Amino acid sequence: MRLSSTCLLLAITGATAFFCPKPMPHLMSATRGFVPAHVATAQRVREVSRDVSHRQGALFMAEQFDYDVIIVGCGVGGHGAALHARSEGLKTAVFSGRDVGGTCVNRGCVPSKALLAAAGRVREMKDAHHLKALGISVEGDITYDRASVAAHAANLANKVKGNLENSLKALGVDVVEAKGVLAGPHKVMGDGKVFTAKDIILAPGSLPFVPPGVTCDEKTVFTSDGGLRLERVPEYVAIIGSGYIGLEFSDVYTALGSEVTFIEAMDRIMPTFDPEIARVAERLLIKPRAIDYRTGVFASKVTPGIPGEKPVTIEMIDAKTKELVEVLEVDACMVATGRVPNTKELGLEELGVETFRGFVQVDENMRVLTKPETEGGEVVPNLYCIGDANGKLMLAHAASAQGVSAIENIKGRKHAVDHNTVPAACFTHPEVAFVGLSEEQAKAKGEKEGFKVGKSIGHFRANSKALAEGEPDGIAKVVVNKDTGDLLGVHIIGLHAADLIQECANAMAAKTPVSELAMMVHTHPTLCEVLDEAFKGAVGRTAH
Amino acid sequence: MRLSSTCLLLAITGATAFFCPKPMPHLMSATRGFVPAHVATAQRVREVSRDVSHRQGALFMAEQFDYDVIIVGCGVGGHGAALHARSEGLKTAVFSGRDVGGTCVNRGCVPSKALLAAAGRVREMKDAHHLKALGISVEGDITYDRASVAAHAANLANKVKGNLENSLKALGVDVVEAKGVLAGPHKVMGDGKVFTAKDIILAPGSLPFVPPGVTCDEKTVFTSDGGLRLERVPEYVAIIGSGYIGLEFSDVYTALGSEVTFIEAMDRIMPTFDPEIARVAERLLIKPRAIDYRTGVFASKVTPGIPGEKPVTIEMIDAKTKELVEVLEVDACMVATGRVPNTKELGLEELGVETFRGFVQVDENMRVLTKPETEGGEVVPNLYCIGDANGKLMLAHAASAQGVSAIENIKGRKHAVDHNTVPAACFTHPEVAFVGLSEEQAKAKGEKEGFKVGKSIGHFRANSKALAEGEPDGIAKVVVNKDTGDLLGVHIIGLHAADLIQECANAMAAKTPVSELAMMVHTHPTLCEVLDEAFKGAVGRTAH
Repeated sequence: MRLSSTCLLLAITGATAFFCPKPMPHLMSATRGFVPAHVATAQRVREVSRDVSHRQGALFMAEQFDYDVIIVGCGVGGHGAALHARSEGLKTAVFSGRDVGGTCVNRGCVPSKALLAAAGRVREMKDAHHLKALGISVEGDITYDRASVAAHAANLANKVKGNLENSLKALGVDVVEAKGVLAGPHKVMGDGKVFTAKDIILAPGSLPFVPPGVTCDEKTVFTSDGGLRLERVPEYVAIIGSGYIGLEFSDVYTALGSEVTFIEAMDRIMPTFDPEIARVAERLLIKPRAIDYRTGVFASKVTPGIPGEKPVTIEMIDAKTKELVEVLEVDACMVATGRVPNTKELGLEELGVETFRGFVQVDENMRVLTKPETEGGEVVPNLYCIGDANGKLMLAHAASAQGVSAIENIKGRKHAVDHNTVPAACFTHPEVAFVGLSEEQAKAKGEKEGFKVGKSIGHFRANSKALAEGEPDGIAKVVVNKDTGDLLGVHIIGLHAADLIQECANAMAAKTPVSELAMMVHTHPTLCEVLDEAFKGAVGRTAH
Repeated sequence: MRLSSTCLLLAITGATAFFCPKPMPHLMSATRGFVPAHVATAQRVREVSRDVSHRQGALFMAEQFDYDVIIVGCGVGGHGAALHARSEGLKTAVFSGRDVGGTCVNRGCVPSKALLAAAGRVREMKDAHHLKALGISVEGDITYDRASVAAHAANLANKVKGNLENSLKALGVDVVEAKGVLAGPHKVMGDGKVFTAKDIILAPGSLPFVPPGVTCDEKTVFTSDGGLRLERVPEYVAIIGSGYIGLEFSDVYTALGSEVTFIEAMDRIMPTFDPEIARVAERLLIKPRAIDYRTGVFASKVTPGIPGEKPVTIEMIDAKTKELVEVLEVDACMVATGRVPNTKELGLEELGVETFRGFVQVDENMRVLTKPETEGGEVVPNLYCIGDANGKLMLAHAASAQGVSAIENIKGRKHAVDHNTVPAACFTHPEVAFVGLSEEQAKAKGEKEGFKVGKSIGHFRANSKALAEGEPDGIAKVVVNKDTGDLLGVHIIGLHAADLIQECANAMAAKTPVSELAMMVHTHPTLCEVLDEAFKGAVGRTAH
C-alpha cells in the first residue's frame, strides 16, 4: 500500500441502521417509511429547491432524484468523478466532509512534494562536490527555516485545495460540507438530512495504518499526517516501513540533517520495488546518506517520548520467531506501514455489503459487490466505489481515473480502468517510477502463460543531459513480452523519472509494441533518451 | 534553422574532379580508369584486408565492395546510421574526419547543455526570493569559476565523444579518420585512398552561418563554436538572432552576469516559436532579465574589438529600407543566425548533383536527387544524404532518425521519417519544446484542407508539482483537428518541457487521438499533468 497519492474523506462517520440489507424492490416501501421527512436544502447546496417530502411517493423514479449522481468523499478520486459527471451534464453533488482534496492534497502527495522540493534543493546546494564539478561554489552556509519549509507545504495544500473547491463551484457541482453516509438505495445522509441520487459513488479514501503496539501521539510518534506538518526535524528518526512514504520522508529528513533508521518487516528494504531497481535505490538513496536499516523485524511496541527529555522507545521483534531482538531509542518515530480503507460507519453493512479487510469489493466497472467476487458477490445496483477504499490501486490518479470510469459506466458506456497501465512514482532525489509488472512478475506470468520475457536497460550515465546536469545515476529497465513485443513493465530510477514514465504508461495503454517505440524519435539531448536506449536495446539495437 | 541539435562533419574538404556527372553504366569504365590503385587499409580500418587493385575488374559487383555501407560524416546522424547498419549486419565504415560526434557533441547541443546546467543553478541559487518561498536561505555568495564552467562543457563533450567512439569500435564499425569525399558511384576517397561500398550515406552536417558584413574573430565576435568555449563572460553581449541558439546563450549569459541585446531581423522576437508561446517566453525569458532587443533590423556590419580596449561595433540597418538605424558598441557579439549545409567540396557536383542553397536534395527515403524534385530531380542510385545537409529538419535526433531510415531503405524496407512528429526543444530555464504544427500553421492547413482546428491549454500554475517546486510559470498548448481528434501540434514552455513533449511526439507518431490521450492516466502529482489538463480540455473536459 502506498500513501503518496491516496486520497480519502476522513469525515465520514455516524452510523445509521435504517435500511434494508439489499436494495430489493419488495423492501423499498418498508425502507421508505424510515426516511425522515425534511426539506433537502443544506446551506451550501444550490439547485435543491423542490420539497423532498412532497415527492416521497415517486422517490425512485429517476426524474425525481435530487441528483443524477452523489459522490461521497471529495479527494482526488471524488473530485475527478465530479468533474467528469459535470462534463457529461449530470446533476452532481459531493459530500466533502469539509475535506476537499482529501489525503492527497491535504495530508499526502501534495504537501510531501513541497517538503521534497525544499529538501532536494538543500541537499543539492550543500553538495559542494557536485556544484564544483559544474564550476559553482557557495561561500557561506545554506540554511533552512523549518517553519518556512512547513509553511510552504501547508500553503501549497491550501492553494491546491482552494483550486479544487473553485473548480467544483465553477462547474456547478453542489458541495455538501457534511459527512456522507449511505442511507439506503439512492440515498445519502449528511447533517441529519437525506439526499437522493440515481447513482451513488463512494470515494471515502483511506487512513494511515497504525500497527498494534504502536502508540501515536502525532508529536514524537506520528504517521504521515503528523510528519507532513514538519513540526520538528528530529536528530534521529526511525521510520517503520520502507515503502514510498517512508522513502520520501527519509529523503526529506536526511537532507534537513536527520539520521534515519528504517524498520522493515520484509526480508529486504524497499520490498515493493522491482528488486533490480531496489538495489540501485539502495546505492543512491540509502548508502550515501545517514540511513541504516533493520529488515525482517516488526516494531512490536512503540512508546512516545517527550522532546528533549525522554526518547521514543521501539521494541523490535523478529518477524518470524517473534523474539525480541532490539530496543531502539530515537528522537522520533514515523509510522509508514501503509494505509487502511476508510470504510467504517459508511452505512455499508446496512445495505448488505461485506467489506474484505475493510476494502469495498467492486467489479471492473467500479460497481459495488455485496461480497468478494470469488465468494459469489453480486452487484449492488447504482452503487459504485472508487479510490483507496476499493483497494484496487491506492494512488490518487488511479482514484481519479476510476471516478471517470464510474461516470462512463453510469452514462452507459461500459468502461474499465486498466490498472496495469497506471504509472506510479516515488519523488525522492532522484525519483523512482514504474508502470506495469516487475521483472519477477513478468517472468512468472510468462512461465504461466507460455511466453518469453526480455529486458533491456538504458543508463543515465550514458545520457548526455544527465551528464550535463551532473546527475549520471540511475537506470531505466524495460520488460517486454519477447513473442509479441508488448511492454509488460518499465521501471526507472533517475532524474525526473516520474515524468519520464509517462510515455511508457501511454505506450502500454495504447498497446504500442516496443519495435514501434524504438523507431519513435526522442529529442536530443533529453533524459527521455534513456528510454530510447532501452527501447532500442529491447529489439537488439544500440542507441549510442 | 536551429543549432541546438545540429551535427556536422567539419572536416570534409579537398575537392576531386575525377568522376562522371551521373552514375550511368556506360561511363563507369571511364571512371574506373581514374581510381588510384592502392591497398585500402587506413591505420584505423579493420577488416579491410583484400587488395582493392586486385578486384578492380569486378568493382561493381556487390560482393566485391569493401563495405556494404560507407557513411561520410560521424555526427549524431552518421553515428546513428552506423549503429543501425551494424544491427542489420551490414559491413560498415564511417569517415569521421577526426570529428566523431560532430557539431552536436563537440560544438552544439551537448556542451551547451553543460553551460545551461551550470548557469541554471547559478540563477536559481542567486534567486533569494524563490529560495525563501521554499524556506531556504544562502548566507554568503554564490560564485562560479568561468574556467571550471567551460571545463565542464569541454569535459562533457569529450566524454560523450569517447562514448560514441567506443560504441563504434564495440560494434565493429570501421572508423576512417580521414575526411570523406565522393569519388564516383560507390566510392569515397579519404587520405588519397578510395574505399568502395554498395551504398553511401552522406552525413556532412552544417556550419554556422555568418552573414555578409560580419567579421568573426571567434574572440569578440563569435558563432556558437566560439561561444561554447566560454573564454570570457562579457559584460555586455549582443546576440544576432533570437532563435534557439541565441535564446539558450542569453539564458547562460544573463545567469552568469552579462547584459544581452538581441538583434533580430524578423518583426518579432523568437520568430520561430508559436506566437502564443513566444509571448510567454518573452514574459519569462526576456523581460525579467538584463535583456533588451531590436527587431526588424539587420546587423549589416560587425567589426571585432579588443577585450578591455576597443568595443565591438555593430551597425544595424532597417530590414526593409536598409537605412542605417543604430550603431551599437558591445563587449562581444555572438552570431546565431542559423546554419548552412557543409556540402561544398564533397564531390557532389562531379556526380551531377545540384544542391539547392547548399542543401542536398533528397526524396522522403533519404535518397539523393540530382536536383530539387520540383525541377525533375532524379534519384542517384545507392546514394543517401541525412542530417543538416539535406535541410529537412536541422536537429541531431532528426539526423539520427534519418540515418536509421536510410539503412531501412538500404535493407529494402521502404521507410520514411515523419518529420512532423519529431520533437524539438530549447533548453532555457524554463525549457521550451514543441512538436508538429504551430497554431497558425494548423489553422492555415485546416482552412486549405477543410477541417476545424481546436486548441486547449494546460497551465503550470494549476499544477501541484510545479507549485511545489516554486516554478509555476508556463503553459502547454495542444492544437487538434477537431474533426478527427488528431493532434496537430503541441507547444510547451515550462519546467522540464523538453521531457514532457515526448508523450505528445509519440502520440502523434502513433496517431493516438486526443480523446484516447485524455483517458490515459497521468501520475499525480507530476508535471505531465499539465498535458493531461490540456488533453482533457481538448475534448471538453476539466482536469482539476
